[in-house]
Amino acid sequence: MPDRADIPRPTVKRLSLYLREAERQIEGGATTISSRQLGAAMDIAGTQVRKDLGHFGQIGKPGIGYQASNLVITLRRILGLDRTWRAVVVGAGNIGRAILGYPHFARRGFHIVAAFDQNEAVVGTDLAGIEIRSMESLPDFVSDQDVHLGLVAVPVESAQQVAEQLVEAGVKGILNFAPTRLMVPVGVVSVDLSRSMETLAFQVSRGLTGEFSLDD
Amino acid sequence: MPDRADIPRPTVKRLSLYLREAERQIEGGATTISSRQLGAAMDIAGTQVRKDLGHFGQIGKPGIGYQASNLVITLRRILGLDRTWRAVVVGAGNIGRAILGYPHFARRGFHIVAAFDQNEAVVGTDLAGIEIRSMESLPDFVSDQDVHLGLVAVPVESAQQVAEQLVEAGVKGILNFAPTRLMVPVGVVSVDLSRSMETLAFQVSRGLTGEFSLDD
Repeated sequence: MPDRADIPRPTVKRLSLYLREAERQIEGGATTISSRQLGAAMDIAGTQVRKDLGHFGQIGKPGIGYQASNLVITLRRILGLDRTWRAVVVGAGNIGRAILGYPHFARRGFHIVAAFDQNEAVVGTDLAGIEIRSMESLPDFVSDQDVHLGLVAVPVESAQQVAEQLVEAGVKGILNFAPTRLMVPVGVVSVDLSRSMETLAFQVSRGLTGEFSLDD
Repeated sequence: MPDRADIPRPTVKRLSLYLREAERQIEGGATTISSRQLGAAMDIAGTQVRKDLGHFGQIGKPGIGYQASNLVITLRRILGLDRTWRAVVVGAGNIGRAILGYPHFARRGFHIVAAFDQNEAVVGTDLAGIEIRSMESLPDFVSDQDVHLGLVAVPVESAQQVAEQLVEAGVKGILNFAPTRLMVPVGVVSVDLSRSMETLAFQVSRGLTGEFSLDD
């Protein structure tokens, strides 16, 4: 098996799609899945699916397909999802609240363990069962509680500074909701709603239909 | 100039990045931008930038680069952003509130003109200056007010039905925040926070650093 850091990014993104589809098929009662089925929902050819999964050895059987539960376990391991990740949210405004109320993180192994805000009026209150803490308590909390990921949900003006505080405190990755580029020496994934809207506008202006994932 | 429907999707996504970078450079005082500068922030080679922009004729000058304001105008036209788009939000929960409070849509030509919710307790109230209306009023509103885009911010169980109502009412595109695949005969872009977290988890588990946009 190759060092997984060598896997091309587009392949990684497709692996994540395959995992979703395999889980969906299992929920529907499937025990084996063909490469054609795995790719069909995303309009990806079976040959491409086999090539992508072929990076990780002989997982499937020709003419039979992939054993569904094994495939899910393998994909979760490849994607680093065979463990839990502890995360904190910084910013308890609208976006922070939306994140804390999002029901699907825990199911995928992401545990949001605290939220932080600089507004003293909200510190000590509770959002979706999670206590909002002061920014001053962030460094100790992150190191004591073994927090891996930080979600930045503050206004664009504070985003870089918050990201730096999180990295200094020890997080290894940042999910950024502020529409700005963060310069920090850890992994960063940005969720930019304006860019999603622009992608949609382009589609509509060209009369294109169908799902257009940002992860294509 | 080719029919823009023929432009490959990865190119479209890069055009959107070039637009961001050109705007950023103009804010910093630039009047011309080289292909190298345009690509540098996204780690894209100058040759790739020139190839992408070359689809649209001779925009830049060898040895000088692109005239910054012309480049922005051209990119906005290519991407369908030289017009305004009227949008409605369905769902006035946490995610709906985050969308309505997001300050960057209007600046990019996206005008959110109404929100809808099935909960009668919130109908008639106001969120970030936008009135929440009943689901029953959606069809007439969308056709009377020339609404182009619908943002689906309802729980996963209702998302498909809401998407169908929006399409029936006449929207041409949907931005979907529910973690499910929508089957409707218009353009759909999905924002899936779990997948963003998974991408980040993969990065961190491989020790990769740097910005990892979902639009790469």
